[in-house]
Parts: sequence; C-alpha cells; structure tokens
Amino acid sequence: MITSAQNPLIKEILRLRLDKRAREESGLFVVEGIQGVVEAVESGAAINVIVYAPDLLTSELALDAVRAAEGRGVRCEAVSASLFETLSERDNPVGLLALVERRLLALDTLHPEPSGLYLALHGVSDPGNLGTIIRTMDAVGGTAIFLVGQTVDPFHPSAVKASASTIFSMPLVPVPQVETLLDWCRGAGVAVVGTSDRAEQEYWAASYPQAVLVLMGSEAHGLPHDLLDALPRTVSIPMHGTADSLNLGIATALLLYEVRRQWRALPTR
Amino acid sequence: MITSAQNPLIKEILRLRLDKRAREESGLFVVEGIQGVVEAVESGAAINVIVYAPDLLTSELALDAVRAAEGRGVRCEAVSASLFETLSERDNPVGLLALVERRLLALDTLHPEPSGLYLALHGVSDPGNLGTIIRTMDAVGGTAIFLVGQTVDPFHPSAVKASASTIFSMPLVPVPQVETLLDWCRGAGVAVVGTSDRAEQEYWAASYPQAVLVLMGSEAHGLPHDLLDALPRTVSIPMHGTADSLNLGIATALLLYEVRRQWRALPTR
Repeated sequence: MITSAQNPLIKEILRLRLDKRAREESGLFVVEGIQGVVEAVESGAAINVIVYAPDLLTSELALDAVRAAEGRGVRCEAVSASLFETLSERDNPVGLLALVERRLLALDTLHPEPSGLYLALHGVSDPGNLGTIIRTMDAVGGTAIFLVGQTVDPFHPSAVKASASTIFSMPLVPVPQVETLLDWCRGAGVAVVGTSDRAEQEYWAASYPQAVLVLMGSEAHGLPHDLLDALPRTVSIPMHGTADSLNLGIATALLLYEVRRQWRALPTR
Repeated sequence: MITSAQNPLIKEILRLRLDKRAREESGLFVVEGIQGVVEAVESGAAINVIVYAPDLLTSELALDAVRAAEGRGVRCEAVSASLFETLSERDNPVGLLALVERRLLALDTLHPEPSGLYLALHGVSDPGNLGTIIRTMDAVGGTAIFLVGQTVDPFHPSAVKASASTIFSMPLVPVPQVETLLDWCRGAGVAVVGTSDRAEQEYWAASYPQAVLVLMGSEAHGLPHDLLDALPRTVSIPMHGTADSLNLGIATALLLYEVRRQWRALPTR
C-alpha cells in the first residue's frame, strides 16, 4: 500500500489535477468517485491506473469493479486513507479514482451525419459550464462538440465532474480556427446557426434543418462580431428582466432542445 | 482605514460568508464586486455597509458610487488591500463589497398575477444551481420563486454570484410545506405542473395555461412520489443519452422557456 506523498504516482495525480499542461503532455486525466470510475470502465475508456483506499472504499460494487479491472490486467494501486484524502477534491472521499486517457477526435476523421445535431463552443472559459454542456448534449442526443479556438480544458476536474460521466461517450473535437469548421460544415451539408443577443430572429421562431450546427460564443464576449456578420443565420434568446445575459450552459440547452423539439416529428435515421 | 483582522466588522463579514445561521440572525448577506454592489444600490436594496480597499479599487465609476452612497448616509468603510484579500472570494479582488439586507417575501402578502409565471423549487441543495435559476427566472420574465421545504440559502455567496445580481429584483418566497403552496395556487387560480423523469407527457407536448407554477424537485431525488401522485399534471424532459438526468438549472430553464414560447402570441397583460 502506498503511504508516502513522495511516491511518483501520488505526485503525478496531484499534478494532473492542477495543471492543464501536465494533462496534455501525459494524455491523462483524473476521474474521482464510484460512478465516474465505473462509467469509465463500462464505456471502454482506456484506464491507465485505478487508485483506491481500502480503508475508505466500502462499496461492494466498487470493490468488485476494482477486482474485475485488476483481473483484466489494469494496474490497481492501494493507498492509505490519509493519503487519498490529500488527492481528493471531495469533503468525504469514497476512496476511488482513476487516471484515464484523454480522448479527442480530429476533425478530418469525423464522418458527417445527415441528421446530426452538432454544437460548437467558441472560446468557452468556465470548466463547470463546459461539463454541464457536455451532459446536456448527451441528454439531447447530440452528435459531437467542437471546441473552437482557446477553450478551457474539457478534462479539467470541474468539467469532468459537471459532465456526470458523459465525457466518456460524447465526441469532442478541437478546432483551432473557426474557418476550418465552417469549411467542414459546407462540405458536409451542415447548416450553421450562430447566436447573439442582438440577432433579430428569436430562436423559437427560426427553423432548423437537418443536419445543423449550433455555434455559441464565450461567457464574457459572445461570438466575435466579424464572425456573426459572416453567418447567414443568427438567432437570439428573448430576455425580459434586469440581467443582460443568461448563463452559457442555460442558453446552449435552450437552443439544443428547441432544435430537438422541432425535429421530434421527423423519422429517426 | 481598518487594518486589523480583529475588527468586529471584518469578523462579521467572514462569518456571513461562511455561516447560513449568521446570515439568518443578522438578516444580512455579502455582495462582492463592482457590478453586484452597483446593482444592489440601483435596485434599492437596503445597504448596511459598503467596504472598499482604496489601494485596490481603481474604477472611477465604482469610486463615484461609493462617494454617492456615502453622501446619502450609507456607512462606508475603507480597509487595507491585504485585509480585503482575506475577505474576498476572488483570486484578484477589485476591492469592493457590501453587506445587504436579505429580502424574503411572505406567501400571504403575495398578490397572484393572472399572467404569472411562477417557479417552486422543492429541496434544491446546490447554491450555484439556485443562483443560476434565479438568473434564468429574471431572463424569462418570471413572477416569483417559491423555496419549498429545506432548501439551500439563496443568500449563500455562490448563489448570489451565480444570480448575476438578479437576486436583488426576483421575489423569493420561502414555503415550509408544499401543501400550503398548493392551497395558495388553488385559491389564486394558478395551475401546477410537476416534473418527473417518469412522467408520460413530454414537456413540449403539454400546454400551459396562464397563470402557471412549474414545480421542480431536488438535484438528487426529484419530487417526492406521493406529491407527484397528487398532481393532476406532470411532464418529463426527453433524454437520449447515457446520463440519467439533466442539471437542475438546465431542466428548469427548459420548462420555463417552453411556457414562455407557448405564451409568446398572447397579449402581455
């Protein structure tokens, strides 16, 4: 059992928690908790190592999962309860985490779906927002999420947590330049809908063809003006109150579910 | 200028940040940042004291607001930059906060609105969710929020922050027992719509009369089964993916904006 904070694995876990560059260089991220680790295993994610604290982990289901993984050759390391508490982000850790391989798709490997519901986030900066949006895309039956330009790391611990384990199944596609994505959409026959609080058409009055890409701007700045000017189709969400904007996760969900509402009568392909 | 961490005001601010009971007993809560303090002043909230750090606060707009408040007799206290940093929840504090009086409405003082869009949260537990929901209710033009049973404090710092200053204008009504609220709705002619992932009717297929109350359950448990059984109308949000639920703030926003979408052709009363 590992008991020293100087152990290389322990030091690596702490680095992966705190440092985006460490996650990018190693290609790994941290998943904490029973639901997260079990979902990672079940979704076929590549598990680098499972770390558990025998003195904390009492769930038989979780212990069975650890033993089963170990039986399939996955590296499993036991650590002391006090050491696990230094690794955990939780007040009452259950004593289970895993290092999992980051999985990002390349745009040129993506086959367009004729009934695809795509989302692009342009410069999203809050990891909790990003995780919640991944969870919403899973629920609405979305096809893939494009991360455009400088965005927060989707494997940030807060994003992983807010995704409620959907990060293992939702395809994530980094795209450095938005023009590259717009070209892909043209080639793939995917209609692009931009969002802006200054767009004249309300989102519930627009109609959304199949396939469609919903393009959302950053929390602080929305979409760049020159990009909005270049888009044939932009919509806004009506607002009645004193605040000047909605939370980004909320605005994204409203758009996605309005598309799904309009498509509900169409046959599923 | 206050420089000592032993100063009674400094100790009170820290207590109000951390302790729900301290907020309830004093009737005060903490608002941090330029936008929050300025909105509190402009919305007519009762300001107990403004605390600012002259060495941090460089915004002329904010300094003008402090001077104007002081001119109207509001207590304003200068503190050292290092002391302000111990009070702040931010990494780079701007040097401005205020203690503001909590404002909660009593159910029996509430006059029902014939075109009201009401929301009730049954046992919501995450302060960030609650703040985001307050912000969404402001945007959708909602009438009032009922906080049913044991809920998180709406004046928790994370709720205040997530509300993006809409907490000063959105009426909040605590209701210990849900039956009391259902009685009020009957008397007021407000239709009640419950939400459940097991309800047969999809939320976009239901029609919502004026006035209406949307009733949402807690993050972990949803609405209690016996309550759902007693409601004439329940709806669900369709989900396609691997996750078994949406974030509560997202689910609430989808319901509220669907009501508003259906009402958009009606005259505003």
